[in-house]
Amino acid sequence: MIITINREFGSGGRELGKRLADALHVPCYDHQIIEMIASEQGLNEEYVANVGEKCIESAYPLTIGHRLAMMPLMMDQTIRVASAQRQLLEKFATQGDCVIVGRCADVILKQYNPLNIFVYADMDSKVERCMRRAPEGENMTRNEMEREIRRIDKERAQYHAMYADTKWGSREGYHLCVNTSHHEIKKLVPAIAQFCKDWFAEL
Amino acid sequence: MIITINREFGSGGRELGKRLADALHVPCYDHQIIEMIASEQGLNEEYVANVGEKCIESAYPLTIGHRLAMMPLMMDQTIRVASAQRQLLEKFATQGDCVIVGRCADVILKQYNPLNIFVYADMDSKVERCMRRAPEGENMTRNEMEREIRRIDKERAQYHAMYADTKWGSREGYHLCVNTSHHEIKKLVPAIAQFCKDWFAEL
Repeated sequence: MIITINREFGSGGRELGKRLADALHVPCYDHQIIEMIASEQGLNEEYVANVGEKCIESAYPLTIGHRLAMMPLMMDQTIRVASAQRQLLEKFATQGDCVIVGRCADVILKQYNPLNIFVYADMDSKVERCMRRAPEGENMTRNEMEREIRRIDKERAQYHAMYADTKWGSREGYHLCVNTSHHEIKKLVPAIAQFCKDWFAEL
Repeated sequence: MIITINREFGSGGRELGKRLADALHVPCYDHQIIEMIASEQGLNEEYVANVGEKCIESAYPLTIGHRLAMMPLMMDQTIRVASAQRQLLEKFATQGDCVIVGRCADVILKQYNPLNIFVYADMDSKVERCMRRAPEGENMTRNEMEREIRRIDKERAQYHAMYADTKWGSREGYHLCVNTSHHEIKKLVPAIAQFCKDWFAEL
């Protein structure tokens, strides 16, 4: 029972993944994937997060000149991180049932027949959620927050396109797409957990 | 509790709607919408089905000459059917909880805050399902069936575009999108029914 979660930024997909894993009594892998790769490869976590969930272009916001000079190192580290990530995801998948949030696990673990869930919400709900959870002192306006959400989702879509034929967030690549607008995640989880159980029972 | 179902042809969306309505103990409105409009307006059922779920272009496959001559009548009847359909959908919505399959109820009944479900499947599953259910003597090849499925879905999308800002089948317009590939509809319904109940309980 491998369940993957792709999610729009601010839609509550991470929380949904965590709660779904709890409901199914399986582990949830999320940020610790980054921590594990970082520690394994002797790299900084933020750097791994960037390389691992952004496309090459946006992970390295350098000037053209720098970028050219740095190219061999960048490519090498990108490949190292991608390879470490793939091995880690495969390890999780072979260890048993789990929920994996992000990291293109839906595509990378395709041969394990995961159940792929996409979590999304309307822009107002996402802005609302992000404003509520913003760290103290962040003080973004709603407009700035909306731009930030669009930027992050664009990066996720670009990153996904490096691995997948189907478009990030387009229904074809998923088994269930859940709109969380105006709903508490925890209220939606029991039915989704039921869906997962029934789905795997029938395979 | 107004639940609307949009569905790809061959995905089992109609069956899902019927079973979901049964599970929730509410009526399901599907083909009888056409029958009711036809009898009310003194029109032929097939004709109403065409006008009601296709865009004007494809509902009237006439030569240009004929089309021009027929235009006033066609427009008049299209408007009559659209208006009768809207009134009927509103009547259902005000009468109480129900499931409505197709007919753009997701958009037409927007002010009733329906839960909108989109049902889809991969092409192989849809062809399989259609071949299994084809009337005796139809004898379409798989390729012909696939073309037919694409044609019908294209019409549904065009029809939907006459009413909606969001694209038919694009996640933004729905609260839940369910991929039925390789699964029996009846096994998926209990969790979806649970989702609907929890969703409305929280509103």
